[in-house]
Amino acid sequence: MYRSHTNGELRASHINTEVTLSGWVQKSRDKGFMIWVDLRDRYGITQLIFDAERTPTDMMEKAKSLGREFVIQVTGTVIERESKNAKMATGDIELLVSKLEILNEAKLPPFTIEDETDGGEELRMKYRYLDIRRNPVKNNLIFRHKVAMEVRKYLSDQEFIEVETPYLIKSTPEGARDFVVPSRMNEGQFYALPQSPQTFKQLLMVGGMDKYFQIVKCFRDEDLRADRQPEFTQIDCEMAFVKQEDILNVFEGLTRHLLKEINGVEIEKFPRMLYDDAMRIYGNDKPDIRFGMEFGELNEITQHKEFKVFNDAELVVGIAVPGGATYTRKEIDKLIDWVRRPQVGALGMVYVKCNADGSFKSSVDKFYDQEDLKNWAEKTGAKAGDLICILSGATTKVRAQLSALRMELAERLGLRDPKVFAPLWVIDFPLLELDEETGHYHAMHHPFTSPKPGQLELLATNPGEVKANAYDLVMNGNEIGGGSIRIHDKQIQATMLKHLGFSDEEAKAQFGFLMDAFEYGAPPHGGLAFGLDRLVAILGGQETIRDFIAFPKNNSGRDVMIDAPAPLNNEQLKELSLQLDIKA
Amino acid sequence: MYRSHTNGELRASHINTEVTLSGWVQKSRDKGFMIWVDLRDRYGITQLIFDAERTPTDMMEKAKSLGREFVIQVTGTVIERESKNAKMATGDIELLVSKLEILNEAKLPPFTIEDETDGGEELRMKYRYLDIRRNPVKNNLIFRHKVAMEVRKYLSDQEFIEVETPYLIKSTPEGARDFVVPSRMNEGQFYALPQSPQTFKQLLMVGGMDKYFQIVKCFRDEDLRADRQPEFTQIDCEMAFVKQEDILNVFEGLTRHLLKEINGVEIEKFPRMLYDDAMRIYGNDKPDIRFGMEFGELNEITQHKEFKVFNDAELVVGIAVPGGATYTRKEIDKLIDWVRRPQVGALGMVYVKCNADGSFKSSVDKFYDQEDLKNWAEKTGAKAGDLICILSGATTKVRAQLSALRMELAERLGLRDPKVFAPLWVIDFPLLELDEETGHYHAMHHPFTSPKPGQLELLATNPGEVKANAYDLVMNGNEIGGGSIRIHDKQIQATMLKHLGFSDEEAKAQFGFLMDAFEYGAPPHGGLAFGLDRLVAILGGQETIRDFIAFPKNNSGRDVMIDAPAPLNNEQLKELSLQLDIKA
Repeated sequence: MYRSHTNGELRASHINTEVTLSGWVQKSRDKGFMIWVDLRDRYGITQLIFDAERTPTDMMEKAKSLGREFVIQVTGTVIERESKNAKMATGDIELLVSKLEILNEAKLPPFTIEDETDGGEELRMKYRYLDIRRNPVKNNLIFRHKVAMEVRKYLSDQEFIEVETPYLIKSTPEGARDFVVPSRMNEGQFYALPQSPQTFKQLLMVGGMDKYFQIVKCFRDEDLRADRQPEFTQIDCEMAFVKQEDILNVFEGLTRHLLKEINGVEIEKFPRMLYDDAMRIYGNDKPDIRFGMEFGELNEITQHKEFKVFNDAELVVGIAVPGGATYTRKEIDKLIDWVRRPQVGALGMVYVKCNADGSFKSSVDKFYDQEDLKNWAEKTGAKAGDLICILSGATTKVRAQLSALRMELAERLGLRDPKVFAPLWVIDFPLLELDEETGHYHAMHHPFTSPKPGQLELLATNPGEVKANAYDLVMNGNEIGGGSIRIHDKQIQATMLKHLGFSDEEAKAQFGFLMDAFEYGAPPHGGLAFGLDRLVAILGGQETIRDFIAFPKNNSGRDVMIDAPAPLNNEQLKELSLQLDIKA
Repeated sequence: MYRSHTNGELRASHINTEVTLSGWVQKSRDKGFMIWVDLRDRYGITQLIFDAERTPTDMMEKAKSLGREFVIQVTGTVIERESKNAKMATGDIELLVSKLEILNEAKLPPFTIEDETDGGEELRMKYRYLDIRRNPVKNNLIFRHKVAMEVRKYLSDQEFIEVETPYLIKSTPEGARDFVVPSRMNEGQFYALPQSPQTFKQLLMVGGMDKYFQIVKCFRDEDLRADRQPEFTQIDCEMAFVKQEDILNVFEGLTRHLLKEINGVEIEKFPRMLYDDAMRIYGNDKPDIRFGMEFGELNEITQHKEFKVFNDAELVVGIAVPGGATYTRKEIDKLIDWVRRPQVGALGMVYVKCNADGSFKSSVDKFYDQEDLKNWAEKTGAKAGDLICILSGATTKVRAQLSALRMELAERLGLRDPKVFAPLWVIDFPLLELDEETGHYHAMHHPFTSPKPGQLELLATNPGEVKANAYDLVMNGNEIGGGSIRIHDKQIQATMLKHLGFSDEEAKAQFGFLMDAFEYGAPPHGGLAFGLDRLVAILGGQETIRDFIAFPKNNSGRDVMIDAPAPLNNEQLKELSLQLDIKA
């Protein structure tokens, strides 16, 4: 062992003992006759001291030569510090070095290894192994480990069994794109990497393994948006002989356990909200309920005048911005510009200032009187001093736009406190979702989700209305988990696949093994999957998952550190019976 | 919830309480006026009773209709059994059913769901979800979960951090073949699936994360031998600021913990053996030391006569088979046939019977006298009543042949008791291995393994002699783990790669990121990886890893249950810029 103690360990009680430490040179201060070196490892920093009176000359010279990030081993005596540092765990002592060995030299790092670094994102990714030396990244990885351990402990204590499902599976051209893996031994054939272990966990239920979980990597070949990764980690769970209520309770229990053990926060009972209500009140199926600013639907009290924009709109809806009545004209114009950005896409915004004196001033005073505006204020919950922001248009679009505005304003107003945790179950999701491009319905969750009892018949006549036994766990405006009660009947599964546009042959080729399994005694079952990356980030009080992944990929799916992906040599391609087909 | 209790839970103390159970019909006995049904779930079996006196007629009829593996839910009263079954945990009671619901029917399974099934391997794999209902498979999966949990608990308690490393990495045409993954977003480029997280864990050490572990899937595109899987699971570990001794101690501690917690076996200190000694004494780098039958090298005492076969041999070596002197001529001939099978490859076998009266009878009496044979007996440790089996030839080959014979005989003699655990460290492996086909040396462990101090110079002159800081943990004749102290110096790593035949360009393209990392302050480090599948099988007293994997692949790398791999459609290929190149 290159050390007797870590650099976070020594205290006043160690004074006068001889110890050996190893680590990286964080920094050194050379006063000529005296040199102090901060020695760092994963556990902390210990101050080393070399001084001309007590340290041999050659060692003084060697100490002077130490550069930042040199790896050294020192032996010495723990002594009391003259000027103690209460901010450091080891601040009472320092090490008078009697032996110094340079284990490895270091080039000057391309960015500073400090909590606040001067390195940009791209540079930090390229030298991720240096970035990991920084406390914020290191602590995030340790935090992630702790969360994963608590998840395993809790579920295992509840008799869940972690079962490893295969990574080399079969491609199913449904939902997102699969990453595929050519098989050398089976010429012309490919495995796929799992987008989730969905079918395998259902087969485990058929196999009687009635409480399953797995912390598992999943893969999706999507065009990456910001903060999406081609490979990501799920806490994947499934239970048999349960109803929706049981699943909500079990995983509410898990989440409550994590909030308590990891964050020291106790939350009694998670509220539940219907999907339809979430959309109506927050314009969003993952509402952040740490703050209000609930939607007020205004059709009835806006469409009785000559204002064509509102009269033509499917939905007129507003929110009250606390204290927004003081916004200047310029500030409001900027807000209007913000909602008109292509990412949001509103055509314009109507606003009403709720003055302190109880009067109102709006951008549509030409059309509406004070009584009208008072009604709007009432409907949106606006008080004197607030600003009402109103958008109008097609329901789906305008809800999304106003939701974006609501989140943006809350961010600006500091209402999204990362230390506050507001979990929420959103339930009764629609079974199907209309693809506006193709005009076809596809499964909102996945094709194995069961419809609410008695709604199967609606599939033929009014597919968009069918509600599913599907639920999401939302925290602070982020979906952290989602699941459903599955279909466990072969006939219903076949009907569902038919409605989703699968021919009998396609259904058999892709899901035949699952439907076969349903014929051999499938129990009622359901489950849920958490996005571990997101969960950890949110429990850690942050929203960027990349900071909680040891070696993330960039937005083009590249690992810039190892420079992957990369071309294969021709021999490898030949062995796989493949040729490149690159467009000129 | 479809149940108030599990089928393994009810005891005499529950008598007269009303409960609800769910599960699968294991079997039913219909005596006309009375029907008993064994209801099974993951936790056990509970006997249900329907009887004409107490059960309504329609329910009797329904009970009669129940087939094997039907999924049912029953409510009823726990009553005392007339004839108790001491072999069953629930054998004191039975359930008098008052409500019966069929949750799902079942076709007759293609094999019996019993501990001893009539299903063959292929059939059981195709219907793996039914196979998992059987106790032996189910219990293996639960056992695996327990082992994995104990590993995580132990290492986490020792301040190891589990860090997830990426699955989409870069292909390195070294060692086994990579599975590759075409990148749609980076045309003509491929990711590779990791054969192990080797370089990433070393980068974590450079990053200061000084105790790392991960239970992680690894991938190797090899022509599959029996009991090899294209995807397998490793307990991957790495530590910084350690020497070989530290690593051996830490992971001996882990293994000792597992033996104690999982098997209830306490083992004080694991023996250590030099690789050279293992090869000399057992002909094998993973010797099974549960039994003796050590090799006796006989060159000196066999090459002084006219027996050309021995005189021409590089090595003459024998083992004593306990009690083998009673083997008939026919039995011995069969043994000779066995060593001459192509899988073993010996040309013949010389034998000596050590008779009870102290005399010897050998197949080479023409050449050797009693004094010679007595010397051989002494050298091989043969006692009166034993049989000495002697092979001769080129050292490497003959050692492998005699080792195979030793293991086969031990198996036949019942010396390989799966309840006995004999761990062993084999240390000081050679750094390089000669590839007989190409005449080139390649890394025996991997190119990042460090040579023993002071042996670097030997690389140029006598590469085969260089020993490495490399070690394997062996248990009961199986390698369950292996690792090494790594190189942490860029220059030494460059020298090593050069000796392994990498040009500077190749070295830079494939391992440039690692060698760059070594310039920024790399600490001394090393590690080890356990094969989890193998470890679990051995702790479970078995040797077939497939029985401990939920969804294994067959010897052609196929998942016969989901029928993967499978062809892709043309659109998918086109999106990936690929064409098939199938030989006619």
